Amino acid sequence: MKQKLVLLALLVTFLEGKAQFSHQQKDSMALRNLYDMSLLQGQSYEWLDHLSNKIGGRLSGSINAERAVKYSKAQLEELGLDKVWLQPVMVPKWTRGQAEYAYVQTGENTTTVNIVALGGSIATPANGLKAEVLEVQGLEDLAEYGKEQIEGKIVFFNRPMRPDLIHTFAAYGGCVDQRYSGAAEAAKYGAAGVIVRSLSHKIDEYPHTGSMSYGELPNDERIPAAAISTKDAEYLSSMLKLDKSLKFFYRMSCQNHADVESHNVIGEITGSEYPDEIIVVGGHLDSWDLGDGAHDDGAGVVQSMEVLRLFKETGIRPKRTLRVVLFMNEENGLRGGNQYAKVAQMKGEHHIFALESDSGGFTPRGFSFDASEAQFEQVKSWKSLFEPYLVHYFAQGGSGADIGPLKDGDIVLAGLRPDSQRYFDHHHAATDTFDAVNKRELELGAATMASLVYLVDKYGFDSPINVPAELKK
Amino acid sequence: MKQKLVLLALLVTFLEGKAQFSHQQKDSMALRNLYDMSLLQGQSYEWLDHLSNKIGGRLSGSINAERAVKYSKAQLEELGLDKVWLQPVMVPKWTRGQAEYAYVQTGENTTTVNIVALGGSIATPANGLKAEVLEVQGLEDLAEYGKEQIEGKIVFFNRPMRPDLIHTFAAYGGCVDQRYSGAAEAAKYGAAGVIVRSLSHKIDEYPHTGSMSYGELPNDERIPAAAISTKDAEYLSSMLKLDKSLKFFYRMSCQNHADVESHNVIGEITGSEYPDEIIVVGGHLDSWDLGDGAHDDGAGVVQSMEVLRLFKETGIRPKRTLRVVLFMNEENGLRGGNQYAKVAQMKGEHHIFALESDSGGFTPRGFSFDASEAQFEQVKSWKSLFEPYLVHYFAQGGSGADIGPLKDGDIVLAGLRPDSQRYFDHHHAATDTFDAVNKRELELGAATMASLVYLVDKYGFDSPINVPAELKK
Repeated sequence: MKQKLVLLALLVTFLEGKAQFSHQQKDSMALRNLYDMSLLQGQSYEWLDHLSNKIGGRLSGSINAERAVKYSKAQLEELGLDKVWLQPVMVPKWTRGQAEYAYVQTGENTTTVNIVALGGSIATPANGLKAEVLEVQGLEDLAEYGKEQIEGKIVFFNRPMRPDLIHTFAAYGGCVDQRYSGAAEAAKYGAAGVIVRSLSHKIDEYPHTGSMSYGELPNDERIPAAAISTKDAEYLSSMLKLDKSLKFFYRMSCQNHADVESHNVIGEITGSEYPDEIIVVGGHLDSWDLGDGAHDDGAGVVQSMEVLRLFKETGIRPKRTLRVVLFMNEENGLRGGNQYAKVAQMKGEHHIFALESDSGGFTPRGFSFDASEAQFEQVKSWKSLFEPYLVHYFAQGGSGADIGPLKDGDIVLAGLRPDSQRYFDHHHAATDTFDAVNKRELELGAATMASLVYLVDKYGFDSPINVPAELKK
Repeated sequence: MKQKLVLLALLVTFLEGKAQFSHQQKDSMALRNLYDMSLLQGQSYEWLDHLSNKIGGRLSGSINAERAVKYSKAQLEELGLDKVWLQPVMVPKWTRGQAEYAYVQTGENTTTVNIVALGGSIATPANGLKAEVLEVQGLEDLAEYGKEQIEGKIVFFNRPMRPDLIHTFAAYGGCVDQRYSGAAEAAKYGAAGVIVRSLSHKIDEYPHTGSMSYGELPNDERIPAAAISTKDAEYLSSMLKLDKSLKFFYRMSCQNHADVESHNVIGEITGSEYPDEIIVVGGHLDSWDLGDGAHDDGAGVVQSMEVLRLFKETGIRPKRTLRVVLFMNEENGLRGGNQYAKVAQMKGEHHIFALESDSGGFTPRGFSFDASEAQFEQVKSWKSLFEPYLVHYFAQGGSGADIGPLKDGDIVLAGLRPDSQRYFDHHHAATDTFDAVNKRELELGAATMASLVYLVDKYGFDSPINVPAELKK
């Protein structure tokens, strides 16, 4: 009897080992198929070419944004998904107006510098604004200088992104408060306007725009806010050392308008076994207006569309409902992300996983997760499947702005993490263009996303195959 | 007594644990210092700017190559190394002559296409060469077509690099025989000339040159060999489907000359404890002539120089002798690498480690090693130190062409492995220029190399701290 039990135990162990092996093998083959399809017969690069070169910058509320809605919906319809629809959402409309103009004046000499209005800023007076400049290294300096030294001046926020941080998004995070809140804070001390050093590591002539907010500041206290190129920020700073009383002139005709209707674009493959469990993959369709938004976030849009196409083309029928969501208005309002989450909640939809690509179309290095420890352990158990594709980075912390509003107790949120070293050379600037995206890198990103989605769809987030017993609740 | 022994054992364990911890901490701090110095006060990008923009392409035997020798020697001398010297070496001299010219003729119509001579090729007749074209997919097709179908024709090698291989160097390796041996092999079947599809994933108008060899082929049997841009290779292939008897014309005036003297540039910091154990870090100073050689291998040159500068600037006095070697003539002869190894052997020098950077100046992903299992295990024990810098890839197999000749039983050879997805867009083409190199990526590479060199210098390759007992011979 005892011998028989031992034999039985051995047999079970053998069969379990075999099943495990076979799962691993199947998963490994599935990933290989997804990567092959993306690299050999990918569609993402062609879509991005159209979005970037045939449409261009897609600022919320613009005609281009609506052209992108129409185009991406039509492309999703061609994929033969189970459903494709538009989800209405009201978005802010801000227009840049005429090209901005600025110069630095020392004595009789003027030198033109490159600026752009920050998104949401009011215009300068029609004839421009000229004032002395106070250079500061951050919001925290304002209290120190006080009203006495700030009033009537243009505050120049010049804290640079730290070059020693390996994760460039951390360097960005360490400076973005100057851009977002600089005007609101400086206005409290009576500043006439603000200019902010562009958020880029690279010293060049391109100013980088981005969203700003006046917070609760009454309309009549608002002041115009511009970004200045890093090269001109260095120039201005060095000139201030020579001549504290130099003047800065700028003229901007940007304008805030009433909200307009726009849309999230959504397509889905309905799940074959658990249609009520929804997996979202997405990026944002809107972009800034200076470049063509190829990296931010054309790449994320076409990669997300490609995930569903790769499933179709490789013949994977997802068990769960797989949805691509192209969010509107990430850049200056997050209205699309908020609307999607609101509707999902109203309908009582059950989202188990959302993955966003919004960090550029560069070589994929891995993912970041917003997940419980147990969920993260499960994800990490898949890590070796990604090694052949040089995808090594699996970390807790952060996902994507558009999917953030979906957060509740259960859902796992994730962000694709491409190589970030070049990203801020292009982010929100005229240099964010199609030619800066490498076809292979874009395609590798799409396949990497599809691979993670494949695994989440197959195993869900509480499968006994993947969660070690001690980690289950 | 027994109790005392137990206490003693515990104490030893505690102290060992403490020593281990302290080593780890010190190493971690040392790496952070090296990265900080490279990212905050790096010199590599400035050197590369000069090498690329003030000097330019540096083909062996050219005046530019000699200017690069002079410049890099002077820069090393400014670092205050213990020794800087030139090592003479005879190198081949090949000149491109006038810009190449080529067209495809179908009936009365001619269409210009972009070609460049392969390095080492003979010229066409002065008035050019015109013949019918036979498209093949590789050397192995020649025997199949035989003399009958090849004689008098231009053989067009058109096997593309495989897009599905994640390591682009593997895709390159799968095609480079067409370029290197295509002419020699096709000549045996009486071909009039060869044109080879450029070794690049990207479909664009830039032809990519590179070395070729006629092997033992007598002078009078040699035929001219050119690379054609991928875009024009696609065009030519599609035209051949319409018109098998179309004619291809090309004219090249390239020339092989007598060998000339050039130099490897060498600098060293003499080891404080084991001056006779030599560590080499290097890249190659020569480049092709079409671009400015910023990625291949300006990047490797300045990163190698930077390794020694980082040691000096962070105050690390190496225990072993640390040598930077800027090799001459990697591209079309490897004379510099062979000469360095020959002199080292003649002098009875003991090299324990050599690291080459010759895969472009992109984000460092890790290293490949040519090492014993025990040595590789030791290297892998350092892996976690590199994780904060997103350097994850440690693999066996391959190092660098220039350091290859140093191989003997003991030495560990290694190659820096940067992200390779964009590399062949630039390799050997007019697109290999300074603006394609990102400052941060270059600097991260230099710090990554310096970090590995620091660890090898500190621990050597048989330190009891790092090699598990069971792995030691």
